[in-house]
Amino acid sequence: MDIETIQIEFSTKGKTDIIDLTPRVSLVLKEAGFMEGHVIIFSVGSTAGISTIEYEPGLVNQDVSGMFNQIAPYGDHYQHNLTWGDDNGAAHLRSTLTGSSLSIPFKQGKLLLGTWQQIAYFDFDTRPRTRKVIIQLLGNK
Amino acid sequence: MDIETIQIEFSTKGKTDIIDLTPRVSLVLKEAGFMEGHVIIFSVGSTAGISTIEYEPGLVNQDVSGMFNQIAPYGDHYQHNLTWGDDNGAAHLRSTLTGSSLSIPFKQGKLLLGTWQQIAYFDFDTRPRTRKVIIQLLGNK
Amino acid sequence: MDIETIQIEFSTKGKTDIIDLTPRVSLVLKEAGFMEGHVIIFSVGSTAGISTIEYEPGLVNQDVSGMFNQIAPYGDHYQHNLTWGDDNGAAHLRSTLTGSSLSIPFKQGKLLLGTWQQIAYFDFDTRPRTRKVIIQLLGNK
Repeated sequence: MDIETIQIEFSTKGKTDIIDLTPRVSLVLKEAGFMEGHVIIFSVGSTAGISTIEYEPGLVNQDVSGMFNQIAPYGDHYQHNLTWGDDNGAAHLRSTLTGSSLSIPFKQGKLLLGTWQQIAYFDFDTRPRTRKVIIQLLGNK
Repeated sequence: MDIETIQIEFSTKGKTDIIDLTPRVSLVLKEAGFMEGHVIIFSVGSTAGISTIEYEPGLVNQDVSGMFNQIAPYGDHYQHNLTWGDDNGAAHLRSTLTGSSLSIPFKQGKLLLGTWQQIAYFDFDTRPRTRKVIIQLLGNK
Repeated sequence: MDIETIQIEFSTKGKTDIIDLTPRVSLVLKEAGFMEGHVIIFSVGSTAGISTIEYEPGLVNQDVSGMFNQIAPYGDHYQHNLTWGDDNGAAHLRSTLTGSSLSIPFKQGKLLLGTWQQIAYFDFDTRPRTRKVIIQLLGNK
């Protein structure tokens, strides 16, 4: 069995900006040449999250924000903001709830995702940033 | 170290139908004969989720639905529904929040779950469906 | 490739008590001497969860509880409580939503966490308990 660990970087706009990582992860898998195993996608940092979604504009640009604006509104008072003179308490709460790791099995060199299921990175922070994600493959070539 | 990747299928009723996958996963583990490692349970599709729960009727038939009806009500207006002429925007949001992968360690051939902790598949869609889940074992026999 | 599976125990106070497991997991990794791979942290039981957080007092002592008190308040009526004569229905819902497994890649013997990102155990139960967590390392030494 083999392991390969890669770090990717990309720019985000913040405020629940959702990035489709499926093409990047698929490319890493293809180039590494693994056939059966799984990939771990890990979000580095405490104001972002990883999950899956049908990556279409309605969900990505409106509905997901609508849900999180109820759960942890950006404008609310958070003790975190007082601790650091910060303004991203909501981003931390959204990150903890969404989670930072996702494991996807692959076989015959293909990710076993559904047809309408994409790998989504959620940038919950309140400003544009450069972000890091770890992609780790484990399996047989 | 060995890998085994299996796809199972089952029928669901939709509307936050919760299925206990523990017996299926335990059987796959037993038949494969792995002793130490972990199993990844991955939910294929973007309107379902995987997590753990105490699988008892109060939580499964009422309380979980009660929580999600607050977070993402089925009857609300979602942009997703306009995009596709669809009615399952709530299902997509619940899926993203619940997550689609779960990793459970095992040792001496036994899943290291708690006594009252079961593996639960959450079908959030709005209609009965046939569903797919990937069960992948990694470890030593 | 090697596997190591360890169970740790610790005391919790309940009511969304949040424990930083980063030092324990880092120590297990260091002592085991693995260089590249990942660690699975698995929360045993159905009234707790695992995620990551910036472990600072504002989030840990107030903001996380504030969010979950909206999602699944401790004082609400739950069918689960009627089933068992229990009072921790809210704890089960919070557990299912938070999730019970987390996978963190490591390389050159170091967990690939962000600077302000810690491994957090969420005890959602309504009373002090002794808790179990499984730490499983997979990778190359």
